Amino acid sequence: MLGVCYYPEHWPEAWWVEDARRMRELGIAYVRIGEFAWSRYERSRGQFQWDWLDTAMNTLGEAGLKVVLGTPTAAPPKWLMDEHPEIAPIDEQGRRRGFGSRRHYTFSSQVYREESARIVETLSRRYGEHPALVGWQTDNEFGCHDTVRSWGAEDLKAFRDWLRGAYQSADRLNQAWGSVFWSMEVGSFDEVSLPNCTVTEPNPAALLDYWRFQSQQVAAFNRMQVDIIRRYSPGRWITHNFMGFFNEFDHWLLGESLDFATWDSYPLGFLEGFPFAEAERGRWRTTSRPDIAPFHHDLYRGVGRGRFWVMEQQPGPVNWAPWNPAPAGGMVRLWAIEAHAHGAEVVSYFRWRQAPFAQEQMHAGLNLPSSHELSPGGREAAAAADDLMRLGDLPATVAAEVAIVYDYEAHWVAAILPHGADFRYPELVFRWYEAIRGLGIDVDFVPSGASLEGYRLVLAPSLPIVSASAEAAFAAAKGLVVFGPRSGSKTRHFSIPEELPPGSLQRLLRSRVIEVSSLRPGANIAIQGAISGNAERWRELVETSAEILAAFADNSPALVGNDNCFYLACWPDSRALRMLMELLCRKAGLSTIELPKGVRLRRRGDLTFAFNYAETSWPAPFGGEPLIGDASVAPRSFSVWRTSPAGRDR
Amino acid sequence: MLGVCYYPEHWPEAWWVEDARRMRELGIAYVRIGEFAWSRYERSRGQFQWDWLDTAMNTLGEAGLKVVLGTPTAAPPKWLMDEHPEIAPIDEQGRRRGFGSRRHYTFSSQVYREESARIVETLSRRYGEHPALVGWQTDNEFGCHDTVRSWGAEDLKAFRDWLRGAYQSADRLNQAWGSVFWSMEVGSFDEVSLPNCTVTEPNPAALLDYWRFQSQQVAAFNRMQVDIIRRYSPGRWITHNFMGFFNEFDHWLLGESLDFATWDSYPLGFLEGFPFAEAERGRWRTTSRPDIAPFHHDLYRGVGRGRFWVMEQQPGPVNWAPWNPAPAGGMVRLWAIEAHAHGAEVVSYFRWRQAPFAQEQMHAGLNLPSSHELSPGGREAAAAADDLMRLGDLPATVAAEVAIVYDYEAHWVAAILPHGADFRYPELVFRWYEAIRGLGIDVDFVPSGASLEGYRLVLAPSLPIVSASAEAAFAAAKGLVVFGPRSGSKTRHFSIPEELPPGSLQRLLRSRVIEVSSLRPGANIAIQGAISGNAERWRELVETSAEILAAFADNSPALVGNDNCFYLACWPDSRALRMLMELLCRKAGLSTIELPKGVRLRRRGDLTFAFNYAETSWPAPFGGEPLIGDASVAPRSFSVWRTSPAGRDR
Amino acid sequence: MLGVCYYPEHWPEAWWVEDARRMRELGIAYVRIGEFAWSRYERSRGQFQWDWLDTAMNTLGEAGLKVVLGTPTAAPPKWLMDEHPEIAPIDEQGRRRGFGSRRHYTFSSQVYREESARIVETLSRRYGEHPALVGWQTDNEFGCHDTVRSWGAEDLKAFRDWLRGAYQSADRLNQAWGSVFWSMEVGSFDEVSLPNCTVTEPNPAALLDYWRFQSQQVAAFNRMQVDIIRRYSPGRWITHNFMGFFNEFDHWLLGESLDFATWDSYPLGFLEGFPFAEAERGRWRTTSRPDIAPFHHDLYRGVGRGRFWVMEQQPGPVNWAPWNPAPAGGMVRLWAIEAHAHGAEVVSYFRWRQAPFAQEQMHAGLNLPSSHELSPGGREAAAAADDLMRLGDLPATVAAEVAIVYDYEAHWVAAILPHGADFRYPELVFRWYEAIRGLGIDVDFVPSGASLEGYRLVLAPSLPIVSASAEAAFAAAKGLVVFGPRSGSKTRHFSIPEELPPGSLQRLLRSRVIEVSSLRPGANIAIQGAISGNAERWRELVETSAEILAAFADNSPALVGNDNCFYLACWPDSRALRMLMELLCRKAGLSTIELPKGVRLRRRGDLTFAFNYAETSWPAPFGGEPLIGDASVAPRSFSVWRTSPAGRDR
Repeated sequence: MLGVCYYPEHWPEAWWVEDARRMRELGIAYVRIGEFAWSRYERSRGQFQWDWLDTAMNTLGEAGLKVVLGTPTAAPPKWLMDEHPEIAPIDEQGRRRGFGSRRHYTFSSQVYREESARIVETLSRRYGEHPALVGWQTDNEFGCHDTVRSWGAEDLKAFRDWLRGAYQSADRLNQAWGSVFWSMEVGSFDEVSLPNCTVTEPNPAALLDYWRFQSQQVAAFNRMQVDIIRRYSPGRWITHNFMGFFNEFDHWLLGESLDFATWDSYPLGFLEGFPFAEAERGRWRTTSRPDIAPFHHDLYRGVGRGRFWVMEQQPGPVNWAPWNPAPAGGMVRLWAIEAHAHGAEVVSYFRWRQAPFAQEQMHAGLNLPSSHELSPGGREAAAAADDLMRLGDLPATVAAEVAIVYDYEAHWVAAILPHGADFRYPELVFRWYEAIRGLGIDVDFVPSGASLEGYRLVLAPSLPIVSASAEAAFAAAKGLVVFGPRSGSKTRHFSIPEELPPGSLQRLLRSRVIEVSSLRPGANIAIQGAISGNAERWRELVETSAEILAAFADNSPALVGNDNCFYLACWPDSRALRMLMELLCRKAGLSTIELPKGVRLRRRGDLTFAFNYAETSWPAPFGGEPLIGDASVAPRSFSVWRTSPAGRDR
Repeated sequence: MLGVCYYPEHWPEAWWVEDARRMRELGIAYVRIGEFAWSRYERSRGQFQWDWLDTAMNTLGEAGLKVVLGTPTAAPPKWLMDEHPEIAPIDEQGRRRGFGSRRHYTFSSQVYREESARIVETLSRRYGEHPALVGWQTDNEFGCHDTVRSWGAEDLKAFRDWLRGAYQSADRLNQAWGSVFWSMEVGSFDEVSLPNCTVTEPNPAALLDYWRFQSQQVAAFNRMQVDIIRRYSPGRWITHNFMGFFNEFDHWLLGESLDFATWDSYPLGFLEGFPFAEAERGRWRTTSRPDIAPFHHDLYRGVGRGRFWVMEQQPGPVNWAPWNPAPAGGMVRLWAIEAHAHGAEVVSYFRWRQAPFAQEQMHAGLNLPSSHELSPGGREAAAAADDLMRLGDLPATVAAEVAIVYDYEAHWVAAILPHGADFRYPELVFRWYEAIRGLGIDVDFVPSGASLEGYRLVLAPSLPIVSASAEAAFAAAKGLVVFGPRSGSKTRHFSIPEELPPGSLQRLLRSRVIEVSSLRPGANIAIQGAISGNAERWRELVETSAEILAAFADNSPALVGNDNCFYLACWPDSRALRMLMELLCRKAGLSTIELPKGVRLRRRGDLTFAFNYAETSWPAPFGGEPLIGDASVAPRSFSVWRTSPAGRDR
Repeated sequence: MLGVCYYPEHWPEAWWVEDARRMRELGIAYVRIGEFAWSRYERSRGQFQWDWLDTAMNTLGEAGLKVVLGTPTAAPPKWLMDEHPEIAPIDEQGRRRGFGSRRHYTFSSQVYREESARIVETLSRRYGEHPALVGWQTDNEFGCHDTVRSWGAEDLKAFRDWLRGAYQSADRLNQAWGSVFWSMEVGSFDEVSLPNCTVTEPNPAALLDYWRFQSQQVAAFNRMQVDIIRRYSPGRWITHNFMGFFNEFDHWLLGESLDFATWDSYPLGFLEGFPFAEAERGRWRTTSRPDIAPFHHDLYRGVGRGRFWVMEQQPGPVNWAPWNPAPAGGMVRLWAIEAHAHGAEVVSYFRWRQAPFAQEQMHAGLNLPSSHELSPGGREAAAAADDLMRLGDLPATVAAEVAIVYDYEAHWVAAILPHGADFRYPELVFRWYEAIRGLGIDVDFVPSGASLEGYRLVLAPSLPIVSASAEAAFAAAKGLVVFGPRSGSKTRHFSIPEELPPGSLQRLLRSRVIEVSSLRPGANIAIQGAISGNAERWRELVETSAEILAAFADNSPALVGNDNCFYLACWPDSRALRMLMELLCRKAGLSTIELPKGVRLRRRGDLTFAFNYAETSWPAPFGGEPLIGDASVAPRSFSVWRTSPAGRDR
């Protein structure tokens, strides 16, 4: 199904009926509105103007469109900021971040919590049971523009309260943080200071707690809105639109209060933002790298407990990357079908019409600015709508046979103490994901601690902090489990476990890490054995009583195995990584297919999709005539076959 | 004619007579003094010490030198800053920029306006009719060190006033800026905040207005000084010394109040500051790139309405570039003659003698530090004086047959929303200038909106905002007019025109831009047709009913033409650019000559100058014996011929 | 002798006895403790808890270990910072640097001076005569994390006082600084402002004085502690642990109050911090570059007037470089012996046991975290202990025949006005050191102005400011003296000498520099004559009546000589530098040996050490069987021979 983001407040009221009619004509079923409209319905405190929004909701509903309403808290109006300047976030350098764009609030502002509750209650009371309304989006892209963390007086106050709750006494805090180091001990919680603007790096345990605290503040802010909406809007679902390659709060935690997850998919913009090599960026500049969108579809399907939407889908050039090319012909259509293949229920374009003004005026829409004429991307969206019509009702998405453990704290630990400048957790996971997807395998993401039942293979590319529940889940797993470097290397309080890494995983892995080396670019170390290739960026010195499956050039273990558990003691290069995945799939009894770099497969029920990002056709090795597309998958296109169902029940 | 910048306050009074005598001996006619001397004649409020300046003026005048006196407002003294700390500018991060160098004031400080008026009045009353005095320089290098824009309380107050004048009501402001986007609306002008320190980028319309406002503040500050000086110094001219590659205020606007323009020419320093490739910087490291100084001579001749000086000319190594080599032998002499070829009335060296102390102690002068001995550059200046003597009275400079439209707002628009990280307006114009100068053509610069009468070819490399007067001038032009990418792409209020780009130029160009792509390095797109080569950095998707002269590889139009108007829908590489200039010159009936990279020509009346920046001689294809130099122009040298007059009357 | 840094407060008291026993077993004689323990013995003002430290001192002493006690002033506790927030340093951007790591104080805080005096007195009264105590370390790594200079109100107040003392009157200050330039004159010392946050660069003379002032503040702070300790701890020595490649205060000055110098040697970390080319960093990534540690051993032996320790020695991967690999096998052992070869009395490892918590948890120790088990580095330290045992009492270190003048002001001058972006004094000296060490020569470092008696060759790679005592020492030198670029180029008040560079050295060098050029990368200038190669980065235009030994491609002098004094007018590339050293050694009658890049020699009395950092053996051209190691020195290993004594008496 298709949807679209629409801003009636940006256009003459006279256009709304025609816009709604043309949306339906295009095949659009859902419209998201209202998430930046606060100043339009509350021009000054308590002076509400609802008539325009009433009209907009009615107009859309009468056209047969289902409305998703956004709460407006991502952009508090100026009169409110002038009333309460303390709402503004403070950056890590101590500077106030002012009004004039969006997200100018700290989650720790008590007054902003109250104001947000007030406006969400007002809005949900008024529209909660509107017949056109089917669901809600809370706020917009929590954390965008580095806004999870603020570093001001409001934040310090809330942090001290949080620490009091977590530790009860200053002595326990000092003990947990190792504050004896460098005389950092505090005599009471009132002596705690923010871990910014320190002379050199702050205590990593303090910083990790601060990041955890801010992550929980986001979740609490969201839950506050959810609780209000549920009260006044019965029968409607609630979601939030997450971002890509964004890890500053725990999405698993926030997702718990939502009915399902949505995310905002900008495949070309993300290509520029992720640490790919320049040559990789150049190669995929107008298509995106084939695993970027799928990675997130799979991740947010997990966060949404099996259900997700794309709430914002790139329809043409965006405005915010260093370079913003138009997508290659065919890609806007491909991306929409690809999302559905990964289980999306709706793909909603951002936005109906390009805004001719303000910050995002160079961001394409389905229609040209100020016009009723489809843009190049709009024409592709229409083609995608036809494709979806031909496919009819899509089968249910079932659980995959392979799971990747994705852990936000793992990212935080590596970001706080990387030890090597290029040890980046999100990149590591992405590389593992690419490697196994290149073998034609479908993948689920799961949080650390979740049940691993039913998975034939579980990948944990790096999991520094292993909770008791996670340890239990790994121990209970019947499939293979493989851990990457730094797993089990830290306690919950960011210290090295007494028994040395991998900490409590030693029981499963029968191995102990006694030294680690980060490796500067070029400082590779050869690996030989069941897998071969090189370690780059990171290697460990392991003592083990498990089987040594592969070793480094100096004979110390690189890959060790024990029953169904494996440990990889390095950051592998692409060759070693591919061989590792092949080895694991063989052991797990998963059948693989070696795909070219530009081609990826995905099953949904009894449908098999093949997506070709490359410039040459891919002759698919499947029998039978595709439902859509050719047996030899055309460049920048896709084909769909009906096959026997893959995967398994959830 | 030659001049020099002199600081009597830096040297023992006993040296002044000898200095003046030696200046005359060297062939110097003009001396600029006094622009940083405030603390020397007003040591504390109202305590004036004029005797030294009286003596200096008299000494110079008695030697036959003509004095240019600078107003001292570029460096307010410490006692004044301590009295009024609010004079200091605030940087974009909100930090106060303190005393201890120069330009430590914001143009929006009302008290500094008053203090400046007071000192300028005092100075011009005292010396306005001094017999040695021939003219004035206001302040010094307005805007140097990022001082056009300040971001403090004084600025906000003045900006609100400016907006009140420009928009009358908050509703009109909201409408013009598209403030409805992200709930950025204000209820009154008192709610307007500065467009800095926002969470993400500010509204581009707000930022453009802020930049315009600050540009106008500079012009108003200058005009305040001019008005006072005119009152007390009848018969003397007034100028200001502009900088190179500097675009933060509108020079056309400021120039309106001056009698003519001057600029400060540091050919080697500018090479390091402009975004040339490293190989280009290396190649021209001791000569400067051949079009850098000429570009500015032509630009400031335009700003001066046909008249300009070089107020500061590099005489040797400077102190402020990342690397500061000595100019290759011959270049100091060449630069002086080159300036005259482009119409300079005076070339004034900075400075008479190298200062042994303070910030600029590593900046060469015509004399060695603390000595009466010519530096290597001083000896070349003497040679240039001989050259000028041999040439005698120079003929008048006449208007060229080709004009380039140079527009400061065009730079601001691209700088505020570049869309591609390397879309730089000044570089684009410079590349176009280089291309046509490489064909031996003389060029004028004109502001957008100026009459284009008499020009056979007008180049507008990019002109996003097209005023009504500009549109009329283009429509009235009888020569060819060619527009580059992004022309007509914005309204005055920084939004996309309703009819789509190129906005009101659609009537002339019969074309419409429906999508743009910025291209990362390496992402070139081939062009074929009347010109060939590649688009790089930027390309547009154009629909047209005009003739398609060249197309991109995907067959969409790259160069379209219609009557005498043309549109180039990309950033061209050097090959495409050269072919474009050749094509245009052919169509315009201009005869061209293909020059090597190091050689440039310039006519002044019946004189033809050839300048050779390269290491090998250039056999000039002209008949006749040169007045100066050889028929085969020597390396790092020049030749001058008397020919039939080129160009046309202004 | 070996030592170790130990933190009893980090471990259960029950472990201390066993730790002490195992230290002795390993061959450790000295233990440094206590330098970050303030919060542990003064939990709030005046509430002292000494029992644990008493126990620790006694336990160590009873095991036969000699204790070095650190004063705790590098990390004032939180209660003190809350009492006196003005203790905190202010960074150059004006931001307060807060609590939460270490070194959060400015040396100019009067209250912190008093508090430091109080705690040092308390500590030295209590333990000054403890039988286990042999010496003291003041504070820890003065200046680490950019803490020499602070830019706040406390600093301004102290700076004004310092200027009053130095200049007596504002007029003399204005004169010395050349404040007339840009109207920077002040009417009184109360008008002086800090030389930061200026609009463009501040007056270099002001900045140099500010750096001098802060350097002297560090020395005064240290002397305050020394004076107190001497009062209460008779018979114990006092030292401080300096850092590597650190030049922000004058180590010669501070060293005057110490009994000897110590420094903290992290050979791998320093490799990443110094401006080596990437290829160099890659090549030496697990060994360090062979001259890094020796350079500092020789420098700090000079600062310690012939005596030094390594107070902290890297035992494995550190935590603070961009990449942190484990040292190649053999290097930890090699570094310990190498330090002794250069005259170290003690090499003390940092630290006994890796801390599992806080900022340095990824820094290796001699023992694995939380364990009583030696790390890989710990096992190498044990091997080094065996080596030292075999060598027995080491002979005295005598003065070398070659001296390098190392001058902190030389670095400050070049850092304040580099003129070329890559003119870095410490790198220049290091390159000269490498070149002469590559010929097998032993080197001393001496301060400018020290007696040069007995040296056959003195190198001054660059000495901009030449004091009267330095001039006298050079004139009195009987050996050869060679000066590098910029020598004599500045007066004490940072201006160009009236007679032009090299200022007062003109008498010795009979040369005058009339122009300088900084050279961008690639802009080399060939040198020919007695040495050949290229000038890079920097060249000068010299007039001379001395002998021209080598000239640039344009025939101007590159190397001139006169009696026993030489001047090199450029930054030489490695070839020219090597040829220069060979030439000088020949002239000085020093015998040389051309060593491979990875091999270095060093004599101590009648012992000759050869260290091999390379991957291949080095067949040493010495007769006789080594005391340790092979005649062909093994890779990453060393050999020691007994030979006739080298060098000379001090």
